[in-house]
Amino acid sequence: MRPIRYGMIGGGRDAFIGAVHRIAARLDDSMTLVAGAFSSSPEKAIASGLDLGLPEHRCWPTWEAMLEGEAALPEDERVECVVIVTPNHVHHAPAKAALEAGFHVVCDKPLTCTDEQAADLVDTARQSGKVFAVTYNYTGYPMVRQAREMVRSGAIGPVRKVLVEYLQGWLATSLEETGQKQASWRTDPSRAGAGGAMGDIGSHAANIVSFVTGLRVSSFCSDVGAFVEGREIDDDTAVLLRFEGGAKGVLLASQVCVGHRNGLRLRVYGEHGSLRWAQEHPNQLHVCTLDGPDTTLHTADEGLSDAAAAAARLPGGHPEAFIEAFANIYRGAAAAMHAGRDDPDAFAYPGVVDGAEGVRFINAVVANSAAGWTEFDSSAQR
Amino acid sequence: MRPIRYGMIGGGRDAFIGAVHRIAARLDDSMTLVAGAFSSSPEKAIASGLDLGLPEHRCWPTWEAMLEGEAALPEDERVECVVIVTPNHVHHAPAKAALEAGFHVVCDKPLTCTDEQAADLVDTARQSGKVFAVTYNYTGYPMVRQAREMVRSGAIGPVRKVLVEYLQGWLATSLEETGQKQASWRTDPSRAGAGGAMGDIGSHAANIVSFVTGLRVSSFCSDVGAFVEGREIDDDTAVLLRFEGGAKGVLLASQVCVGHRNGLRLRVYGEHGSLRWAQEHPNQLHVCTLDGPDTTLHTADEGLSDAAAAAARLPGGHPEAFIEAFANIYRGAAAAMHAGRDDPDAFAYPGVVDGAEGVRFINAVVANSAAGWTEFDSSAQR
Amino acid sequence: MRPIRYGMIGGGRDAFIGAVHRIAARLDDSMTLVAGAFSSSPEKAIASGLDLGLPEHRCWPTWEAMLEGEAALPEDERVECVVIVTPNHVHHAPAKAALEAGFHVVCDKPLTCTDEQAADLVDTARQSGKVFAVTYNYTGYPMVRQAREMVRSGAIGPVRKVLVEYLQGWLATSLEETGQKQASWRTDPSRAGAGGAMGDIGSHAANIVSFVTGLRVSSFCSDVGAFVEGREIDDDTAVLLRFEGGAKGVLLASQVCVGHRNGLRLRVYGEHGSLRWAQEHPNQLHVCTLDGPDTTLHTADEGLSDAAAAAARLPGGHPEAFIEAFANIYRGAAAAMHAGRDDPDAFAYPGVVDGAEGVRFINAVVANSAAGWTEFDSSAQR
Amino acid sequence: MRPIRYGMIGGGRDAFIGAVHRIAARLDDSMTLVAGAFSSSPEKAIASGLDLGLPEHRCWPTWEAMLEGEAALPEDERVECVVIVTPNHVHHAPAKAALEAGFHVVCDKPLTCTDEQAADLVDTARQSGKVFAVTYNYTGYPMVRQAREMVRSGAIGPVRKVLVEYLQGWLATSLEETGQKQASWRTDPSRAGAGGAMGDIGSHAANIVSFVTGLRVSSFCSDVGAFVEGREIDDDTAVLLRFEGGAKGVLLASQVCVGHRNGLRLRVYGEHGSLRWAQEHPNQLHVCTLDGPDTTLHTADEGLSDAAAAAARLPGGHPEAFIEAFANIYRGAAAAMHAGRDDPDAFAYPGVVDGAEGVRFINAVVANSAAGWTEFDSSAQR
Repeated sequence: MRPIRYGMIGGGRDAFIGAVHRIAARLDDSMTLVAGAFSSSPEKAIASGLDLGLPEHRCWPTWEAMLEGEAALPEDERVECVVIVTPNHVHHAPAKAALEAGFHVVCDKPLTCTDEQAADLVDTARQSGKVFAVTYNYTGYPMVRQAREMVRSGAIGPVRKVLVEYLQGWLATSLEETGQKQASWRTDPSRAGAGGAMGDIGSHAANIVSFVTGLRVSSFCSDVGAFVEGREIDDDTAVLLRFEGGAKGVLLASQVCVGHRNGLRLRVYGEHGSLRWAQEHPNQLHVCTLDGPDTTLHTADEGLSDAAAAAARLPGGHPEAFIEAFANIYRGAAAAMHAGRDDPDAFAYPGVVDGAEGVRFINAVVANSAAGWTEFDSSAQR
Repeated sequence: MRPIRYGMIGGGRDAFIGAVHRIAARLDDSMTLVAGAFSSSPEKAIASGLDLGLPEHRCWPTWEAMLEGEAALPEDERVECVVIVTPNHVHHAPAKAALEAGFHVVCDKPLTCTDEQAADLVDTARQSGKVFAVTYNYTGYPMVRQAREMVRSGAIGPVRKVLVEYLQGWLATSLEETGQKQASWRTDPSRAGAGGAMGDIGSHAANIVSFVTGLRVSSFCSDVGAFVEGREIDDDTAVLLRFEGGAKGVLLASQVCVGHRNGLRLRVYGEHGSLRWAQEHPNQLHVCTLDGPDTTLHTADEGLSDAAAAAARLPGGHPEAFIEAFANIYRGAAAAMHAGRDDPDAFAYPGVVDGAEGVRFINAVVANSAAGWTEFDSSAQR
Repeated sequence: MRPIRYGMIGGGRDAFIGAVHRIAARLDDSMTLVAGAFSSSPEKAIASGLDLGLPEHRCWPTWEAMLEGEAALPEDERVECVVIVTPNHVHHAPAKAALEAGFHVVCDKPLTCTDEQAADLVDTARQSGKVFAVTYNYTGYPMVRQAREMVRSGAIGPVRKVLVEYLQGWLATSLEETGQKQASWRTDPSRAGAGGAMGDIGSHAANIVSFVTGLRVSSFCSDVGAFVEGREIDDDTAVLLRFEGGAKGVLLASQVCVGHRNGLRLRVYGEHGSLRWAQEHPNQLHVCTLDGPDTTLHTADEGLSDAAAAAARLPGGHPEAFIEAFANIYRGAAAAMHAGRDDPDAFAYPGVVDGAEGVRFINAVVANSAAGWTEFDSSAQR
Repeated sequence: MRPIRYGMIGGGRDAFIGAVHRIAARLDDSMTLVAGAFSSSPEKAIASGLDLGLPEHRCWPTWEAMLEGEAALPEDERVECVVIVTPNHVHHAPAKAALEAGFHVVCDKPLTCTDEQAADLVDTARQSGKVFAVTYNYTGYPMVRQAREMVRSGAIGPVRKVLVEYLQGWLATSLEETGQKQASWRTDPSRAGAGGAMGDIGSHAANIVSFVTGLRVSSFCSDVGAFVEGREIDDDTAVLLRFEGGAKGVLLASQVCVGHRNGLRLRVYGEHGSLRWAQEHPNQLHVCTLDGPDTTLHTADEGLSDAAAAAARLPGGHPEAFIEAFANIYRGAAAAMHAGRDDPDAFAYPGVVDGAEGVRFINAVVANSAAGWTEFDSSAQR
């Protein structure tokens, strides 16, 4: 299939995730970059586009200009899809406008800052009929997809317990005060939304649980806070979870756990088996059962599910990693765009509803932190 | 030093932990078994003692008989110490009686079933002046002691976050209904006390946090319950913790996590470093810092703390394990007995106060489960 | 920099490594596919090119036609580089012809079947002045480059011992008899050359030793053979090595080690430190020293060498893997082509001399297997 | 069963392995120390015995005195077994004398310095009818016994390839020049025998291969040497092996591999499966097969062989380690002594023939180093 033409919003010089999106889109020739409004600074926006080899007339000074200008181009030339990689507070407006202008959307997570914005995007997307993908990229890993298939098919029995953690250490100091770009907006509630660690990485953790198990949270108890002095947003969150149907869980998201780089780990325990996966060694899925020996499955092993097999590009032992997983999201979204049908399950990409649920969960966890705790006097007898 | 003479209560035929205590006591010739009341069945008690090669007149039918009979023997012949390895509900009475009869006590954990019993043992022990050790055996591992020394000396900075988990899978089915002895009493509140997973293994998890960090719980939020139908006691517990001084933590204890054998793991995150240890690979301590590369320390490495070095018997690379760690508790307790001084810190064994705090924490966590949760409707937009 | 235009020889439908080359070339927009002669079957060659979206007139029936036809195109349209991904016996002729036609060459390993062909390509490349890269792709991993920098800079002292192994299990049965394409030519000496396991993967193992340590073999003792009945080429090779300057080594290459997927592992021991790396977990480099604790370095950690930093695309904890490493070779080769200078060291790609040395080593190891062994009667006293 | 009474030769103050033997003998009450000649210095010998709490008349000044003196004691008081833990050159004489005096023998490895001495002990032991155990202690690990059972029962098919390595780094510098006791005699051919690394640890490596696979070496090619200047004995050895029946192997033994503590690792590849075990994490045995997923077995798992189950003392997840494995050798030897029958296979201990074969192999490997190598000019085209 020919690559989908896309325009990018955000992702200019000094940005991190924009470049990842571009590589991911290109890896399988799923999409090809033809335009962009790469920065909130018009000068930087245009310069960034030129850096990337785009012709000058496709380097737009603002996203509004891009949406308008691209729409005016001939149909076989203009962008088909808008990719949004801006800070969180600049997700809702361009996404909504892009949908309304008739473009498909790929948007980074968390979807929006507020529940209302998220709900609005769900409605807008539905009305538009356009494809809307949210880059919960970790669902692109072959072994995460294998885990999903195994859980859904009953391989470990009804799920009882889910442990998910996403631990980082990069914000253990007040990095934002050094002017570091990534730290600055992620610790600023006006740009990041209500959730800090919870929004940036807790959202991935919550999503991967939902993706793999299909379980839906029914109640929770959370502890959300900041360890670094002066920080206005959480850098550490812990949540006890109860799911509909009786399963329980624990979700941890922290940016102050020194020694962790990008420590997303998932463990799922069912009535007669369990699964364990870790993002930093993504090609292994550890499986235990009541009766058998512990086993380890590897990406591209014989006998994996079709979903996992389709997500791998190489024979076993040739590790695939972050970019390849990210590219799988693009591959799925592009396929949906070719088909003209926004169907996340059929084409294997996270959709706008997943994104909206994530926003609501983040905001609820933050808003209700530390309700109902029990005091304990631990020094009665010392 | 000559071995301390001890008598054992419990630990007869079919028991598990009694045999471990006997090996641990013998490993360094810390203590020598000279008497016992090995079962609540007088016949089995005596038969078990004969199995162990004891002379018939030191094989007592009941623990009451043992305490009385041993006290009547010449001072250089009678037991000096009583080791209690019975189910939890038979800890308090013999421990109290032993102290009052002038014997030192080594008692398995959890110390007692109720807070009142625990407090009573603290008082009784203090009045007796006798040594009282509680076998929180995991504190005997060299690398756990190394972790303690590092945290206490500031090697990772003030502690922010502690993650401890003790996961097992052996009670994922209703094993107690098969008559399995270990499962039967551990799932029976009348013998185990209020805590199931929380009492049996959560107590170890709480203790190792206290041992390594010195942090004291100030409030918590817990979710305590049973997944296996019909079970009257928790088989799965999760607790969010806040400590005095601002640190936070998460404690998990579960017996239904299929695939885990004896998965006690501790992670401690400080302001500028972190530590990670896992009981099933106990000779490694993983250390990270803000600036340096990740490091791994090994039992018996050059440069470890004195406390860690003293707990190792072999050169590096010769793994030491569960029994050796257990024996370290016996070595410490025996040294205290020789010195005639109940000083857990000086002689490196867990004391009666540690045991009592454990009981209070278990009971509080169980009694206040699931207070103050927030409802969440996760399906608003599906 | 704009992508280099390339034409591919081999890599049609059903091929494995051709697709990897195409992704690797595209990942960083280092090179762009504009033509190809994708198969020895003209029909399949053309069909494969159309599959890939090439215009029909750039889908050539044979590599000879491609070289001739492309040379006739305008300079700013025709291929600049020829990428050769055919079985080994079809490396020499097209590579030589491509050089002589004025094209740069990227060629898969082993470079050729015979020493003479290899030497001829070295000469031809030198005379042509064109860039010649050999895809010893494992040298593209950031942590392999870090290892090289550390060894070369003396971080572990003079090297004493090198242990390298490349173990696979996929040929543990006579897979070639099932018609499996990859197995068929790799076990056929007329297409693979003299070396089976030694040629296919031993060549990578030998190259990574050379790349990281710079050591040069002075003598060896080998055991080369096939375990699978009827196989005409080695599937298992072991070599004891002595290097100039006194270091020693062991090289293992096997395709019958059941359980290994793509198990390339390197260990280097110097006078005061050591390094350890494994391809299936490529983002970690384990470093030990005489005095310090064991350490682990990760891709994109602060403080790595420039060479390693330049080879990483993502922040730490976002794993990079096989394709990204492969793409680094393309990035280096493309940079050399832009510069118009065949300088493997400066641009970080393996060159034709590396390729030729690999061929000579493979052939020597195979030709001299099992010289000079000592008989041993192990049952003298049973 | 009552403990066997033993006297120890060697193992006095400052010794390492003697203390390990004493703990191992005591762990299961297999044997009890009642006498000793603990040093070649009579004063130190006696002082060491008193340190250990022996009565003065059982602390002998020399081993000759001990053998004579103990033989003169009443039968139910005197030692039944002599345990020899001296440097290698003081194995043969006391072992022979002990057998001739009617005592069982436990002797450390390597059995003797010369082939002749080894053969003599085999003959003497056979004539005496006494039990003779050689402490190849690594065969005592439950998972090594599991590996043996699996290989012998065909679980991985006929063995093709065996990779064994025993790597240490403690002699990477000339430690012997500092006066360190362990280093001094181990690097002195007059006390250690012909083999340095090969004798001290290569002997274990060779034995574990024999124990697990039953394979017998038919020819080999070795490279034996010293990296540390001035060292008169090998500190690094590599051996390519061929076994009767067609299997092949590689054995590595080194004391200069910085970063390794006690790195004994065994890998066995059969026609349809493989096994992998590492001494520093001894409770796991990794098993792969042609068709299934990779699996990991753990000490005390359900479903292990009887031999492995019998060698474990604790439930799964309670790690067992070096001392416990060592104790298994003592348990087996003691059982044989009670039975009055020298039957290593039946009672699960390494016997005098295993010891003698080890000596012959060490000496052959050292004597024939570097025969028949092929010169290689690696710089032909640079």
